[in-house]
Amino acid sequence: MAIAQKKEPIILITNDDDITSKGIRSLVEAVKGLGKVVVVAPDKPQSGMGHAITIGSPLRMNKLNIFGDVEAWQTSGTPVDCVKLAVDKILHRKPDICLSGINHGANHSINVIYSGTMSAAMEASIEGIPSIGFSLMDYKFDADFDASKEIVHKIVSEILRMKKVDKHLLLNVNIPAVPMKKIKGIKICKQSYAKYDEAFDERIDPQGKKYFWLTGIFKNFDKGKDTDVWALKNNYVSVVPVQFDLTNYTLKTQLEKSNLFK
Amino acid sequence: MAIAQKKEPIILITNDDDITSKGIRSLVEAVKGLGKVVVVAPDKPQSGMGHAITIGSPLRMNKLNIFGDVEAWQTSGTPVDCVKLAVDKILHRKPDICLSGINHGANHSINVIYSGTMSAAMEASIEGIPSIGFSLMDYKFDADFDASKEIVHKIVSEILRMKKVDKHLLLNVNIPAVPMKKIKGIKICKQSYAKYDEAFDERIDPQGKKYFWLTGIFKNFDKGKDTDVWALKNNYVSVVPVQFDLTNYTLKTQLEKSNLFK
Repeated sequence: MAIAQKKEPIILITNDDDITSKGIRSLVEAVKGLGKVVVVAPDKPQSGMGHAITIGSPLRMNKLNIFGDVEAWQTSGTPVDCVKLAVDKILHRKPDICLSGINHGANHSINVIYSGTMSAAMEASIEGIPSIGFSLMDYKFDADFDASKEIVHKIVSEILRMKKVDKHLLLNVNIPAVPMKKIKGIKICKQSYAKYDEAFDERIDPQGKKYFWLTGIFKNFDKGKDTDVWALKNNYVSVVPVQFDLTNYTLKTQLEKSNLFK
Repeated sequence: MAIAQKKEPIILITNDDDITSKGIRSLVEAVKGLGKVVVVAPDKPQSGMGHAITIGSPLRMNKLNIFGDVEAWQTSGTPVDCVKLAVDKILHRKPDICLSGINHGANHSINVIYSGTMSAAMEASIEGIPSIGFSLMDYKFDADFDASKEIVHKIVSEILRMKKVDKHLLLNVNIPAVPMKKIKGIKICKQSYAKYDEAFDERIDPQGKKYFWLTGIFKNFDKGKDTDVWALKNNYVSVVPVQFDLTNYTLKTQLEKSNLFK
């Protein structure tokens, strides 16, 4: 009796650092054996783009040959646009999983909200595609992704092996910038309440006009051991399950019980 | 015995349609009597910018005299940048409340994630400033904001009158595009799972190259009567309490109980 062969999964890969970055190449290499990989990613850096979409101008896309036998497209859009274009114009179907990254730099705690990497993953999750964003805590252009590749391979294989995956599954994975032997494990966490205390760096241009650079000091206000910030500080890989229903149900109940807006 | 005078609240106003839009002018007019209003808003349309921030280029800002005696600044940044600049460089303190809008067009359901209006409000909430985003379900440049102004005034006065306001309070208010007499009331709701089914409109430019416009059909998958989409369809103003902790605690518990990633 023949055993039914499970169809090879289609793995959509995107990022926000741009299609030529070392991080997305490392992600492709990490999962290449796990399914049919298709890359659709921005043609320029899109860090900090959040969940931006392009509505006031049209989009372009071009097929590239930079990943050997892996199909790859660069687009003029944001990370979220890339996911939309991939589903509608390239794959003509939903992929089995969407992977975003590996980002050069952390996307833990509140940064999930600003992150183009995580917004692309969230877009896929909204569309009903299980999705994972990966970030390495190293902003450098030539960051070392060796340990990250092992971790990505492990996490993606385990998710693909699951019998039943929630179609809205969305994980925010951050990886400490240390060699594999120093990594203590993978920890399921909550998003820490940690953020940047902004201070703009004020300068004067050659025409005598003021301009401002965004800078800031990162502060963690959440002292629990169940947060992503704690895990990363202690050399664990952090995995935060993320949702796109932003309703604050606690406040909803409070407001319903109050006399407000009657 | 003298009664202690409560200090006049500082009301920060921003938007994503740009500082010259009718919607932000209507918001200023609606709350002018309720405190000291300061406007800090983008110098160009920023719809669909999500939670984008400007990190790769510097920001500019200029004082404008377009709202009579109300202090107003336009910036070259995104809605989120405007909130950060307002706190650090203009007010030099946190305002008592931040209001964003009134947006020309709906920001209900999943649109809260793409919306520059709501991202500005969320940024303020992250900073510990109670915040409300307002949107009118009318995309027109010259939309009628008369009913919206009454509703905004009512909601903001009631929040400012509360004895104790959660510093992270964040509300997403959407207003049906009908005259005041047709509005049935204000309803506390949850975010509906409703979204656009995207289809890119493919065209050929004069050079013979393809380009794509984002289009889509809006579909509501959430049939409950407790959603913002239901409320708006039935001529209620919808108020969705929003949070910035995106942790999916249900999935977190499931993953913790599983053998994944051990």
